[in-house]
Amino acid sequence: MPGGAEFDDIRDLFRPLTRGAGEALGLTDDVAVIRGRPGFDLVISTDTIVEGVHALLNTSPADLAFKLAGVSLSDLAAKGAVPDGAFLNVAWPFDWTADDRKMFAAALGEALGQHGVRLFGGDTVRTPGPFQAGLTVLGWCPTGGAVLRSGARAGDVLFVTGSIGDGWLGLSAAKGEGAFPGDDRAALVSRYLRPTPRFAFSGIVRDLCSAAVDISDGLIADIGHVASASSVGIELDLAAVPLSSEAQRWLAQQKDEAQARLSLATGGDDYEIACTAPQAAQAELLSRAARLGLRLTCIGAVSSKAGVTIDFQGRKLTADRWGWSHLDH
Amino acid sequence: MPGGAEFDDIRDLFRPLTRGAGEALGLTDDVAVIRGRPGFDLVISTDTIVEGVHALLNTSPADLAFKLAGVSLSDLAAKGAVPDGAFLNVAWPFDWTADDRKMFAAALGEALGQHGVRLFGGDTVRTPGPFQAGLTVLGWCPTGGAVLRSGARAGDVLFVTGSIGDGWLGLSAAKGEGAFPGDDRAALVSRYLRPTPRFAFSGIVRDLCSAAVDISDGLIADIGHVASASSVGIELDLAAVPLSSEAQRWLAQQKDEAQARLSLATGGDDYEIACTAPQAAQAELLSRAARLGLRLTCIGAVSSKAGVTIDFQGRKLTADRWGWSHLDH
Repeated sequence: MPGGAEFDDIRDLFRPLTRGAGEALGLTDDVAVIRGRPGFDLVISTDTIVEGVHALLNTSPADLAFKLAGVSLSDLAAKGAVPDGAFLNVAWPFDWTADDRKMFAAALGEALGQHGVRLFGGDTVRTPGPFQAGLTVLGWCPTGGAVLRSGARAGDVLFVTGSIGDGWLGLSAAKGEGAFPGDDRAALVSRYLRPTPRFAFSGIVRDLCSAAVDISDGLIADIGHVASASSVGIELDLAAVPLSSEAQRWLAQQKDEAQARLSLATGGDDYEIACTAPQAAQAELLSRAARLGLRLTCIGAVSSKAGVTIDFQGRKLTADRWGWSHLDH
Repeated sequence: MPGGAEFDDIRDLFRPLTRGAGEALGLTDDVAVIRGRPGFDLVISTDTIVEGVHALLNTSPADLAFKLAGVSLSDLAAKGAVPDGAFLNVAWPFDWTADDRKMFAAALGEALGQHGVRLFGGDTVRTPGPFQAGLTVLGWCPTGGAVLRSGARAGDVLFVTGSIGDGWLGLSAAKGEGAFPGDDRAALVSRYLRPTPRFAFSGIVRDLCSAAVDISDGLIADIGHVASASSVGIELDLAAVPLSSEAQRWLAQQKDEAQARLSLATGGDDYEIACTAPQAAQAELLSRAARLGLRLTCIGAVSSKAGVTIDFQGRKLTADRWGWSHLDH
């Protein structure tokens, strides 16, 4: 689609989001038409969010839009793709007003526009249930150049962008749990509500990385996905996992540092990129990131022994494939 | 996606639906990768169904799957596209059992497989609300060859495949409304629950039609979309609109034939194709359809006067743009 009587009703809400993309056909047809680009693959990802499940109840329409765009586009960023277009499937709850719908659409336009993404089509329905939306995002990679989970090789080095654990702390903060200084609470909540897909790092991934994944389920679970898809093992240096100043202040209040760091590394909702690269590429990787002002941290290595092993100050911890971890004394 | 912890859980449910498609990467990554096809455009459409809104409450998981596949793929059929792959966003209600999910997945595999469509990816979530699913479908057309709503020209002839009104009667029948003989009720309910996308007709659309649309909102509303997108008018001969034997038996019981025929032509859920073609192509269009054993009926003409006008046995009826019609004496 576009299509369906309801989409006609609100075409005016969504047509600005196409920003004139020919693919969208002005949202007047049932389909979008994507012209192929010689030398490029189309990379497609889709995500769904449900209010009360992936976002707290009573999240604002604007925050829902930013969350949806962020989690969906994050997958493209991690693959080294250049984002292009999106399809929206949105289910409006019966009690959403016209203003709610307008705020959602405007915020989605802003969130997509920040990354040059135009709306190609979509479908809107009403639901007696909670707000729910799916976003299918399209980007381009040079033919064969998408950086998959499956490319890690023993001997590669493991990196992560930004800082880890803020999304999980932000969820606690948004729920009113935990004890955070006022400024920390606001920063963490914002980090949870409006994740930023790391497109600034996409070119580096595309040029230098052997495997990459965005961190949605939790750092340890997601590097576990890489290990599994690549048939390798990953050794994580837990003490090296980068933390924000907010997370460092939270950590200083915790009694069991190892357990607290594990919680940050399994919490999820970070939307940073974890990636592997050959040792020979390490210097260039770090220098290109530095030149772009991007925080990039070496946090481990790829081994030939299956699974994720976690080292914290010389102690070995283990994690099962779902990211739930326990101390292995 | 695929991605998210939940998709891992049920990867076994959905991996068979990929039928080995390389695009799906074995459902082990967050994305699918689509290689371009020189000389072809990618045609994409997306639809959402919500139990209790687009399908009756307590519709079986298998019927929900067939409905979702049918309504989504129907858009590709109407554009003359060759279907290829699909992305599923599904929200399982909390009370769905593992067997319910398995039945849905198996039926979706069957419904997609009938048209050679492989699952490229998706996302699964849980919802406290009703069952909801979106399907984003991908197909291919020769470059520039997708048959849009916007190509109708004054002087063209208007056709429709199959029969009209069965979807709407089927909804009544499924609700237990109306009076239908037993066999008619079952046939109509099935028509409503499991629409068949008209890919058998796609090649003819691609080769000979100037504009086409699938009939989801109702024949009159959907030809109105064509008229509007093409900046032309359409003159519909209501008496010529083809009816199934079930609909004919229903019609024979109605007091006001004009009103009853209008109801059939505005009811929706037919998933037939309405299309326009130059008069010079009419003979070939009809003969190719006949050779394929496809019912195809001439039901009107394209004019230069904007809007849809409806003629029934010499009387003029009018319809507004939403397909709601009234007699214009």
